[in-house]
Amino acid sequence: MILDRGQGALVWDIEGREYIDGTCGLWQCPVGHGRTELAEAAAAQIGRLEFYSSFGDYSNEPSIRLADRLLSLAPAGIERVFFTNGGSEGNETAIKLARLAHRNNGEPERTIILARAGGYHGMGSGSLAATGIDRLREGYGPLMPGIEFLGKPHGVVHGPEATDLLVAELEERIAQIGPERIAAFIGEPVLGVGGMVPPPEGYWPRVQEVLRRHGILLILDEIVTAFGRTGHWFAAEHFGVEPDMIVVAKGLSSGYIPMGAVLIGRRVLDLADGATFLHGFTYNGHPVGAAVSLANIDILEREGLLDRAKKLGDRLLTALKPLEELDHVLEVRGVGLMLGVEFASGDAAAVQSGARMEGVIVRASGANIVLSPPLVISEEQVDKLAQVLIRQVRAAG
Amino acid sequence: MILDRGQGALVWDIEGREYIDGTCGLWQCPVGHGRTELAEAAAAQIGRLEFYSSFGDYSNEPSIRLADRLLSLAPAGIERVFFTNGGSEGNETAIKLARLAHRNNGEPERTIILARAGGYHGMGSGSLAATGIDRLREGYGPLMPGIEFLGKPHGVVHGPEATDLLVAELEERIAQIGPERIAAFIGEPVLGVGGMVPPPEGYWPRVQEVLRRHGILLILDEIVTAFGRTGHWFAAEHFGVEPDMIVVAKGLSSGYIPMGAVLIGRRVLDLADGATFLHGFTYNGHPVGAAVSLANIDILEREGLLDRAKKLGDRLLTALKPLEELDHVLEVRGVGLMLGVEFASGDAAAVQSGARMEGVIVRASGANIVLSPPLVISEEQVDKLAQVLIRQVRAAG
Repeated sequence: MILDRGQGALVWDIEGREYIDGTCGLWQCPVGHGRTELAEAAAAQIGRLEFYSSFGDYSNEPSIRLADRLLSLAPAGIERVFFTNGGSEGNETAIKLARLAHRNNGEPERTIILARAGGYHGMGSGSLAATGIDRLREGYGPLMPGIEFLGKPHGVVHGPEATDLLVAELEERIAQIGPERIAAFIGEPVLGVGGMVPPPEGYWPRVQEVLRRHGILLILDEIVTAFGRTGHWFAAEHFGVEPDMIVVAKGLSSGYIPMGAVLIGRRVLDLADGATFLHGFTYNGHPVGAAVSLANIDILEREGLLDRAKKLGDRLLTALKPLEELDHVLEVRGVGLMLGVEFASGDAAAVQSGARMEGVIVRASGANIVLSPPLVISEEQVDKLAQVLIRQVRAAG
Repeated sequence: MILDRGQGALVWDIEGREYIDGTCGLWQCPVGHGRTELAEAAAAQIGRLEFYSSFGDYSNEPSIRLADRLLSLAPAGIERVFFTNGGSEGNETAIKLARLAHRNNGEPERTIILARAGGYHGMGSGSLAATGIDRLREGYGPLMPGIEFLGKPHGVVHGPEATDLLVAELEERIAQIGPERIAAFIGEPVLGVGGMVPPPEGYWPRVQEVLRRHGILLILDEIVTAFGRTGHWFAAEHFGVEPDMIVVAKGLSSGYIPMGAVLIGRRVLDLADGATFLHGFTYNGHPVGAAVSLANIDILEREGLLDRAKKLGDRLLTALKPLEELDHVLEVRGVGLMLGVEFASGDAAAVQSGARMEGVIVRASGANIVLSPPLVISEEQVDKLAQVLIRQVRAAG
């Protein structure tokens, strides 16, 4: 499927067929396609300084301004920004920095990273090692060692009772491994590739409490969730936690230019205590990506897209929720404009193909259909997306 | 040093000071700064389709056209292109693909990657593991296992005799490890961060012969060398080899948009034999990066910049070569517009600072000053660069 053109929540392929974009590509474009403001921001910055370097003592104004802007939006405790070119690089960066920080704090044996079954953190050797989806890791090893997996934060038990079980598992695993060997815990606030799975009630604050008690850093992988998708700048706010690092990409620039960042909190800086972080990828702090990201954040603010994510997310969830009455549908769930339909049986891939035939793009991910339309999607488009999806899910039973 | 503006081989900081760019930032801009054609290519593509996805069956025309263009330029045997967002991701990709290919060929135990002391391949867990510069790896482990290092391909012995020694070492290490456990050899045609070190005469064809005899894939990391810097599209041509994979970034888009690619050869495809390569980073195959890269390759061709790299590289090497007469200078060397001045003693960092005071940017890398100006640099600018560098190197003795 060769895409040719985009505008708002619509895309067209090279044969001129129109589609409602129910996934925002790979979740990356909260402000939608075809924003001329972002084309202008990119062209203006390229005309001035396309890039130089952010290594050594080099910098540029757009990336300095973007770092300030991110700090003004970030949850309490975040004090530094490290730019990357995307999410995988961000998670590699966070893992390296967590290990370095503990090492500089006199605990070089704190190298283990806790991750979770069903989690997705990227495709590099470190980020893939932390990804709890077996079929993605198979055949590429040995990958980076030092990852210990917890169970998937989603099961047959729901509600506060589920949280009790997951927190008990966390405590038990920490005791088994030894807290003095654990550098950090990495997790997506809401599982993305794993099926758009929000955690059970009260999960994140309780996880944070356990980790702090054991001196383990909390890395939130907000590559999918940050910049409005959950109705907040960061899902950390939605769930009421103050992570030690937040990894972002996608929504930061709406994907117009590859761009990511790691937001770094006070506790990491205190542990690292001035250690030199010899790390970086060539294009880090790219002024074009930074200029576009600034303009993208302006649009998110000016057009009230965070509120819109909540409002339209509710509308879409309400429309889809009755699908749970079908025998072959296990669950319909969502946070903001981030929704998943999980099948008990039935073919998610067939739903993806069928919807495409009807001019709607959705994504099959394992036994789930995952949805994350641009936040600018109209009410009418949301309704059409829901109608088509309902028809296709019914047909897949 | 906050850079504000660039044009050709000149950059200006925010206080209006002008510098000759002797390093092209991090080697990334063969066509120089401030190319309006590239700003226009980026803006036009953003206005049409900024990005969607290259996962699943999605694609876009600019990345398809760029893949075709790269295949038309690449050495014999290269048949596929996998896009990335930069060099580290490219090396991670090549390592994963080498392992997958052998596995699918019934040799799952072929996972070891041979790399070399002094080599630089990136900062992710896999690409950093393959980087033979200890201080860059320290404090971040455990990194990806399965890397075995050979010695630095540069020593006190020069000429064909040096090649004999290096090839003997290679054979010996392969015998020690067992060829049936080795997936690939990764190397930069000319060491970059390691000090702009060309290999001794005849090195690459002989290495290639040994590797092929043992069924080991050759991955050339051409992130620095490809797209004109050595006077060829690929250094593989300069050294007369046909690698199984070539990793590129930097010069591909001249760094205007983060972009990279892995060029994949017939032998890899034969081993993989249709295996699904479940791998990819969000922004892979970015249409904006692809459109800019196509326009960048047009400029390289139209302005004859490959020949210019040879001509101006010779001019700069001739000007700097007399520095070897100084006691504190060990060697002055280069291939095309990629030069290094290695110190026996003396402070490379002081040369970098001193040159900057005189309006010339050079880069200290270990005991070396490394040079890689944009290929559009003028004769007058090359001469000024040489004069300033000569003065500063003399002063550092």
